Amino acid sequence: MTFLDKLKFNADGLIPAIIQEQSTGRVLMMAWMNRESIQRSVDEGRTVLWSRSRQKYWVKGETSGHVQVIKDLAFDCDGDTLLIQVEQTGAACHEGYKSCFFRSIREKGNSVSVTEPQLAKPDEMYGKK
Amino acid sequence: MTFLDKLKFNADGLIPAIIQEQSTGRVLMMAWMNRESIQRSVDEGRTVLWSRSRQKYWVKGETSGHVQVIKDLAFDCDGDTLLIQVEQTGAACHEGYKSCFFRSIREKGNSVSVTEPQLAKPDEMYGKK
Repeated sequence: MTFLDKLKFNADGLIPAIIQEQSTGRVLMMAWMNRESIQRSVDEGRTVLWSRSRQKYWVKGETSGHVQVIKDLAFDCDGDTLLIQVEQTGAACHEGYKSCFFRSIREKGNSVSVTEPQLAKPDEMYGKK
Repeated sequence: MTFLDKLKFNADGLIPAIIQEQSTGRVLMMAWMNRESIQRSVDEGRTVLWSRSRQKYWVKGETSGHVQVIKDLAFDCDGDTLLIQVEQTGAACHEGYKSCFFRSIREKGNSVSVTEPQLAKPDEMYGKK
């Protein structure tokens, strides 16, 4: 896979990946990937991410069923960011919103608005803990 | 500005910002910001970025004229990424493309396609050096 050689990974061997819903253009989340998770994502056709907090691979949607089927994978001019277009099932955000970017600032940052409906409660998505 | 206290900056005091063209949904670039560049962006209504390579503030479009007028500023569930919707004049990419993500992979990464036209030559944007 030649394009991997064009990419620049950070000191931790990671690269940020912007995940966008192809059909609507909605930016869903930002995730981190390493060389192996990119390779697995390309091979499997779904996003396989690297969890920095848990230090392990994370097949997006494996628990919640909210998988991301990859439709396009682009990289930027500097080779240090990915843009992945997906078909998203359900909510991408662990808080139950379609997008993790469900809050926007108002009044020059003095207040914050929630800009989209909550599709599911987190305990419905993952089971109560 | 209260929302700044909800944000998590990395060890270098930076946070990644996804810049998206509001009218088309096209993701234009990923940039980095610090607390002051976010404050200046909000106050001035245009993107003021932090250049990691040059270690200085960078008013996007100051040299090329390709400014980004901010229409919306959102932040994600973890507070560690921004999504900024803009009105983009001309090309966002220093290589003369509308978007920095002008290359996508094909054949499972064995080849790469340029997916959009080059709007300007870099030496027309910045003057020959």
